[in-house]
Amino acid sequence: MINPFTDEYFMKKALQEAEMAFEKGEIPVGALIVIDNKVIARSHNLTELLHDVTAHAEMQTITAAANYLGGKYLIGCTLYVTLEPCQMCAGALYWSQISKIVYGASDENRGFVKMGTQLHPKTTVVSGVLANEASELMKRFFVERRK
Amino acid sequence: MINPFTDEYFMKKALQEAEMAFEKGEIPVGALIVIDNKVIARSHNLTELLHDVTAHAEMQTITAAANYLGGKYLIGCTLYVTLEPCQMCAGALYWSQISKIVYGASDENRGFVKMGTQLHPKTTVVSGVLANEASELMKRFFVERRK
Repeated sequence: MINPFTDEYFMKKALQEAEMAFEKGEIPVGALIVIDNKVIARSHNLTELLHDVTAHAEMQTITAAANYLGGKYLIGCTLYVTLEPCQMCAGALYWSQISKIVYGASDENRGFVKMGTQLHPKTTVVSGVLANEASELMKRFFVERRK
Repeated sequence: MINPFTDEYFMKKALQEAEMAFEKGEIPVGALIVIDNKVIARSHNLTELLHDVTAHAEMQTITAAANYLGGKYLIGCTLYVTLEPCQMCAGALYWSQISKIVYGASDENRGFVKMGTQLHPKTTVVSGVLANEASELMKRFFVERRK
């Protein structure tokens, strides 16, 4: 049987969130948290609108998913995020003990890989899922902002 | 003239916040953000009560201070926190471009120094202010929790 719930399937939804951020003039990053193929949290970057550096898409979904689950640990959950998480978000993911992180485009300057931020030993990571789409959206954003 | 607004003065207030966390059964960490000798945000760890790994004292004060200032950058501000910040909080402080971080006790396991989390180049750090008081409170908490 074909499984429709692939990483690409959920990443497309995260990209829709990133598009919403774009439309609000926010750096276009979107995220979802999924458990048992069910989306339990979705959000996009809101740092400009909220004047809050902590309002990254990932941080909002971590809070929302924990609220949904009624507990602070995200064991069994997968985070889909269009851009590689930063130190802050990777640090939050460390505490959450999330089972899997799937990200799209790499952030070679401020991503957690380059920065050496530690994830929880139980967390697995998949990178590069719909990376071109995420990356194109970022480029388009910065080109438009320069105008 | 004697300046009453020393780092110890503000750290005592952060310790009062940590005591409040203790009374709620939270790991006792307290934080304040100060600008021009004025406290503009104060909070304590609420991760258990809120079921939210992002509810560290520092994260709450960063959000509250930015809200007070009406902008996301905390330039000119000082964070006082009773325990060395973790990767997540140090990552948030990086984005905030906060001018100064003063912390009490070191966290040799999960503090940002050991973890190698990068702060903003404009941020200065002072450590060890009322470290014994902060550390004693932590020890008392873990002894009581074991009972």
